[in-house]
Amino acid sequence: MSLIGIDIGGTKSIVGVADEQGNLISKKRLATLVNLGPEQIIDSIKAAVRNLLSEYNMSPDDIVGIGIGCGGPVDRDRGRLLAAPNLPGWANLPLADSFSDEFSAPAWLDNDATVAALGEMTFGVGAGADDFVYFTISTGIGGGIVIGRKIYRGSSGTAGEFGHQVVLPDGPPCACGGHGCLEAVASGSSIARRARRECLDWPSTILLHWVDGDPMLITAEHVSRGAMEQDEFSAYVWQQAMTYLGIGIANVVNVLNPELVVLGGGVTRAGDLLFEPVRRVVAERTMEGPSKTVGIVPAALGEDVGVVGAIALAMDYLGIRED
Amino acid sequence: MSLIGIDIGGTKSIVGVADEQGNLISKKRLATLVNLGPEQIIDSIKAAVRNLLSEYNMSPDDIVGIGIGCGGPVDRDRGRLLAAPNLPGWANLPLADSFSDEFSAPAWLDNDATVAALGEMTFGVGAGADDFVYFTISTGIGGGIVIGRKIYRGSSGTAGEFGHQVVLPDGPPCACGGHGCLEAVASGSSIARRARRECLDWPSTILLHWVDGDPMLITAEHVSRGAMEQDEFSAYVWQQAMTYLGIGIANVVNVLNPELVVLGGGVTRAGDLLFEPVRRVVAERTMEGPSKTVGIVPAALGEDVGVVGAIALAMDYLGIRED
Repeated sequence: MSLIGIDIGGTKSIVGVADEQGNLISKKRLATLVNLGPEQIIDSIKAAVRNLLSEYNMSPDDIVGIGIGCGGPVDRDRGRLLAAPNLPGWANLPLADSFSDEFSAPAWLDNDATVAALGEMTFGVGAGADDFVYFTISTGIGGGIVIGRKIYRGSSGTAGEFGHQVVLPDGPPCACGGHGCLEAVASGSSIARRARRECLDWPSTILLHWVDGDPMLITAEHVSRGAMEQDEFSAYVWQQAMTYLGIGIANVVNVLNPELVVLGGGVTRAGDLLFEPVRRVVAERTMEGPSKTVGIVPAALGEDVGVVGAIALAMDYLGIRED
Repeated sequence: MSLIGIDIGGTKSIVGVADEQGNLISKKRLATLVNLGPEQIIDSIKAAVRNLLSEYNMSPDDIVGIGIGCGGPVDRDRGRLLAAPNLPGWANLPLADSFSDEFSAPAWLDNDATVAALGEMTFGVGAGADDFVYFTISTGIGGGIVIGRKIYRGSSGTAGEFGHQVVLPDGPPCACGGHGCLEAVASGSSIARRARRECLDWPSTILLHWVDGDPMLITAEHVSRGAMEQDEFSAYVWQQAMTYLGIGIANVVNVLNPELVVLGGGVTRAGDLLFEPVRRVVAERTMEGPSKTVGIVPAALGEDVGVVGAIALAMDYLGIRED
């Protein structure tokens, strides 16, 4: 009896095998080479599942359920992505059916941030919380809402789009078609974009040194590293983004009054450099009541949050409880 | 058998008597003369309850429950206001106990916007909706969240503070101590404040004509009337506020994906002048999925929403269901 979790990301995917209590037995990370197109990538993910199973002398016949997390809005009933901003060509593919057919086991697809929230609720820092919110801060900004230890999906399944709240009405364009969204001013890609654009006015920044003078090579990780090393330009770009991130989190705290705000995703690897300013801005921008009671904490599952969450998704559908 | 609803506002209070199904039998409106201090106002509310009952040959002994709605954060367990921005001197008074002792019946206190949401859920436009949000747009901006036909209160009871989400990071100061909150740029008092301040640059505005040249007499109602009559300055101030209001609503729609957004409170008396721009901004600023499915509608209960909501609050505590 085993559960399979599949976390498909725009740059990497992680496949994991768990026992029926959801304990991760083994996992495999593979690059998502988007240029190869979905068929080849899906085939390599399926091969990775088979390899993992065989390493532990397990058979595909033992699989009782497969959870899949993927970026973008999802049609859960049909197991398809409705849109795939980071995976060109993946929209409307019968993703869940493809895995279900391959392994003769039920498969379920959900949005990556929802899946991550479920992972943190079941196996992570949200294990003791009734009501919490999860923010993923990486290329984009997504979120998940847990109310009464269940994912709250809203009336048509899209609740938790924290990245598309407007925090700067006249701000820069956003991938969603709007502008001034939190994602457009505080995500990893927006931090990189701002640094690339504005570094031209700061010729002495260490960032340009690190990229041999080519602004287009600057990443959000460069900016956080530069801020850590007290490069003035990097600190300026980073602090701006952290102020907006703090405002976006404060807004959700004012609206939902959660016990916990759990922050995950690549940008949170900056650690205190992110949590310190974010906690300060949230304290400044949140009403006294909810501000006093909310904890702002890092996700416990780190890079595994997607694959562990996908396993939790399968458990949730199968009615397996982690009590 | 009767239920009492009491809606205590900063300028007026409404008292109502209902039968045990919550049907409003009669109500009385009285001015809240805040300068008289809480004791005298509470006494006049109690007298109004007795008068209403006697008019219908009912006795205080028939009262089975009393619901009270009031602006500000509330300690529900103790039936007290934690703070009373619009009712100086009312914080920490044992409000629920005072009415409970007077009429020998249980009494419950809750925040006015929460109570209004409950009223719309039970007797108003939210009667058919599982998940919706209620915005009150009057002197301030408050809100209530209904999930699965129950008020969602968050982890410490303050969920729904829609008015204190930041929509303009460098915006004007807010009563909550922050700045750039929705309430600071889209509430009735903020509309009046902005018109008072900026009319000096628009000497020919009809608003100054209406107030005999004294800017301090301008109200939000003047501004909406001016906009209706196509006064250029009024239209400019009004549209700005509506843009921010639309953004604040769009943010809540992106976060919660509700079926309905119900708008009540004095400012919504402007009707289409409010709903038309708000619906347009929400459509522009909300992601496609939740935008397509959400309805933005006026509260059905009008001025009675507070008193009917207070009756619904008592029914909720008493376990009386309206099915």
